[in-house]
Amino acid sequence: MSILPAERDIRKLVSALMESYGREDGLIKIDARNQIDKAVIVETLNDLRSLLFAGFFSGKRLREDSLEYYAGELLERVGYNLEKQIKRAFAHKEGVKAEEAARRITYEFLAKLPEIRAVLATDVAAAFDGDPAAESFDEIILSYPGFYAITTHRLAHELHLLGVPLIPRMMSERAHNRTGIDIHPGASIGHHFFIDHGTGVVIGETAAIGCFVKIYQGVTIGALSTKDGQLLKNVKRHPTIEDRVTIYSGASILGGATVIGESVVVGSNAFVVKSVPKRTRVSVKNPELQLKGGKTEERAELEQGEYWDYVI
Amino acid sequence: MSILPAERDIRKLVSALMESYGREDGLIKIDARNQIDKAVIVETLNDLRSLLFAGFFSGKRLREDSLEYYAGELLERVGYNLEKQIKRAFAHKEGVKAEEAARRITYEFLAKLPEIRAVLATDVAAAFDGDPAAESFDEIILSYPGFYAITTHRLAHELHLLGVPLIPRMMSERAHNRTGIDIHPGASIGHHFFIDHGTGVVIGETAAIGCFVKIYQGVTIGALSTKDGQLLKNVKRHPTIEDRVTIYSGASILGGATVIGESVVVGSNAFVVKSVPKRTRVSVKNPELQLKGGKTEERAELEQGEYWDYVI
Amino acid sequence: MSILPAERDIRKLVSALMESYGREDGLIKIDARNQIDKAVIVETLNDLRSLLFAGFFSGKRLREDSLEYYAGELLERVGYNLEKQIKRAFAHKEGVKAEEAARRITYEFLAKLPEIRAVLATDVAAAFDGDPAAESFDEIILSYPGFYAITTHRLAHELHLLGVPLIPRMMSERAHNRTGIDIHPGASIGHHFFIDHGTGVVIGETAAIGCFVKIYQGVTIGALSTKDGQLLKNVKRHPTIEDRVTIYSGASILGGATVIGESVVVGSNAFVVKSVPKRTRVSVKNPELQLKGGKTEERAELEQGEYWDYVI
Repeated sequence: MSILPAERDIRKLVSALMESYGREDGLIKIDARNQIDKAVIVETLNDLRSLLFAGFFSGKRLREDSLEYYAGELLERVGYNLEKQIKRAFAHKEGVKAEEAARRITYEFLAKLPEIRAVLATDVAAAFDGDPAAESFDEIILSYPGFYAITTHRLAHELHLLGVPLIPRMMSERAHNRTGIDIHPGASIGHHFFIDHGTGVVIGETAAIGCFVKIYQGVTIGALSTKDGQLLKNVKRHPTIEDRVTIYSGASILGGATVIGESVVVGSNAFVVKSVPKRTRVSVKNPELQLKGGKTEERAELEQGEYWDYVI
Repeated sequence: MSILPAERDIRKLVSALMESYGREDGLIKIDARNQIDKAVIVETLNDLRSLLFAGFFSGKRLREDSLEYYAGELLERVGYNLEKQIKRAFAHKEGVKAEEAARRITYEFLAKLPEIRAVLATDVAAAFDGDPAAESFDEIILSYPGFYAITTHRLAHELHLLGVPLIPRMMSERAHNRTGIDIHPGASIGHHFFIDHGTGVVIGETAAIGCFVKIYQGVTIGALSTKDGQLLKNVKRHPTIEDRVTIYSGASILGGATVIGESVVVGSNAFVVKSVPKRTRVSVKNPELQLKGGKTEERAELEQGEYWDYVI
Repeated sequence: MSILPAERDIRKLVSALMESYGREDGLIKIDARNQIDKAVIVETLNDLRSLLFAGFFSGKRLREDSLEYYAGELLERVGYNLEKQIKRAFAHKEGVKAEEAARRITYEFLAKLPEIRAVLATDVAAAFDGDPAAESFDEIILSYPGFYAITTHRLAHELHLLGVPLIPRMMSERAHNRTGIDIHPGASIGHHFFIDHGTGVVIGETAAIGCFVKIYQGVTIGALSTKDGQLLKNVKRHPTIEDRVTIYSGASILGGATVIGESVVVGSNAFVVKSVPKRTRVSVKNPELQLKGGKTEERAELEQGEYWDYVI
């Protein structure tokens, strides 16, 4: 393999790319002093988890008498990294003193951690009560994807409320790619929240979810369709879910005016675009399955519609 | 930026967090000598894969005459790490001599690897036969998520049968977060098993699945709903799927008494809560689509129900 | 713990495994000079992203006057790594001069990057226009899983067109495991493509998708079922989706002869196995929900079928 032609090739490739950078310049970031560092955001999320659940994710024994130093060191690091990234996130926001805002917001966010821990304790309890396969609280904290997602959400939502751009969504997308659970940082969610299995769950930006709510895999709490997405910016376009609602796998609940009342149960695959009064159970009627093959007499019995009915 | 106020701030944050640790003390692990190290579990899973599929994941050439040393070294490392973590997993279990149990179980588990390899060879063959897009066995081993998930499951299930707490679920959740396929370690699954695409698949703890079964994305083999999850602990609450069953995307099969007979085909999105006799094909009847817009004459043709029928 | 018995144990385990390697020898790679290194493929994908979106993923400021060096260095590394892996991918292909092919293909692929950038610029715009929650182009590039998936696809598809075995699928499965979006490298997709949320999306090998197409989570663009998968190799078995089509969450569009005409809208959960003429809106008719519990008078109002109708 001769070296010279390859070198000439690389030059041609580089110059073609330079032209492309000039043309599609929205896809590059040049001389941007304030690029948010995605790796630092991921590291900070991990640190925050180590802080919330001290001793669970360090891999080594955490001693009682070093707990305070442990917390202090982690808080310092999280504070330093977060303040720096928040400052960058605000850099291009008009009318915001980025440095001052970053400092204040970082402090307010960290001061919320005890409150977040108190709510997460209710989420662990809800997961344990809601899942017959749960062996212990430890198992939930260590490995349940739904708990990972709600932990990340409660942190990202707090930053969202404090007005931080970009970073909350980077956090929620980190949870989305680890768990398949996509909760927009804007969604408000009450205590004792449990998502089982979780893959495919979508909860939109303006959703408002009460307490003791339980959701299964594939549930969408979303918006009704629109032609031009940007027209709906800053409008409440996702449902309100009241306390003690259970939503089974694959159900979709859509629209900003849709209110699912207290203690409602929504069955698997139901498609709900209007409000449901409290204590109602909603399920898909007569799945109407059709059968072919097999033995005729066995099939006959199955073909009676109610045989397939599934009443929740 | 003055340093003193920040330092005072950190102290206040730390002391608020210390109070929170005292209050929600179920979320921390203090002086716990026997914390399972999640990073070691993930490393062990990777090592086990390198052991099962020697030469596939090492990135460098594995020579025939060094194969034995390769296997020996990996076995030693996996054995050491696993024994240590299993001992920790048993530490809090009453009436179990953790050290002795860990030693015995690790050995029994590693002795099962040849058997697991034999079954995985049938799973590769099933994937190749089942997917028109499959180019080669290598492609399946290197990149099919369904094959990754079943490999992890066959390992985790073995540890589950040997009574190991926590670790099997940590392994299955690792596969869940990499593939979107959630198989509880308790589920029993026969040879020649193939999951295509796989995102959103859920297979519950007490499911019993036969041989030559093929499953597509979004399929749930789950439990019927309950008010209090913990009441159903240790009850068979997931279906039995007999040999040569195919279940298409999005179908849900629910309930511990539900038996899907030999060679049954379940169509996309079917919701099945009762048993189906062998050789039957079950599909959703008349999707009943409604059409608006477009040209009237073209629409008329489409509106004939059977036009939409999908017979499997 | 005595050392000798453990050593004897390891020997027995190793020899059992050696026998297993001899038996299931399709699961190992011995003396294979040309193993593709999965870690290098992942690194190369990351490098390609850093090249396409210069300055976005480096974590530090990229200066205008060093942009050319930045691009040159990355191109050199990507070229070196890719050429080596492509050569390996071709090693076992009969009638291909692996070294020559790898050299030519790597160059042709890298020369396509400017074109790929131009199309990705339209995808960012489509994401921004399509999602009311989108704050900025930066947010889409940094964190939207749908944009990650289409970026990976446009790269993998190019390598697929150039006839490279194995590597394109390894790339697409990397995106699949990060995003839950499974696009086969063979699928052809026009400009201004947007996938929102995305978990559970499946797009098959022979799908042909036009421009300005918008797809939501859980959508399948797949094949109709078959008994023997391998019979359908190299047959067009996935649908054609024409320009400006929108497909809402959970819809399935199946079959190689199915053509979804220009500007068609397919509603949530619709199951479409036949062609749809242009400008038609297809949605599931009468979800037929059943209601139990709650207050009778409130329920009565809800039970009117059309109350649940969702017209798109």
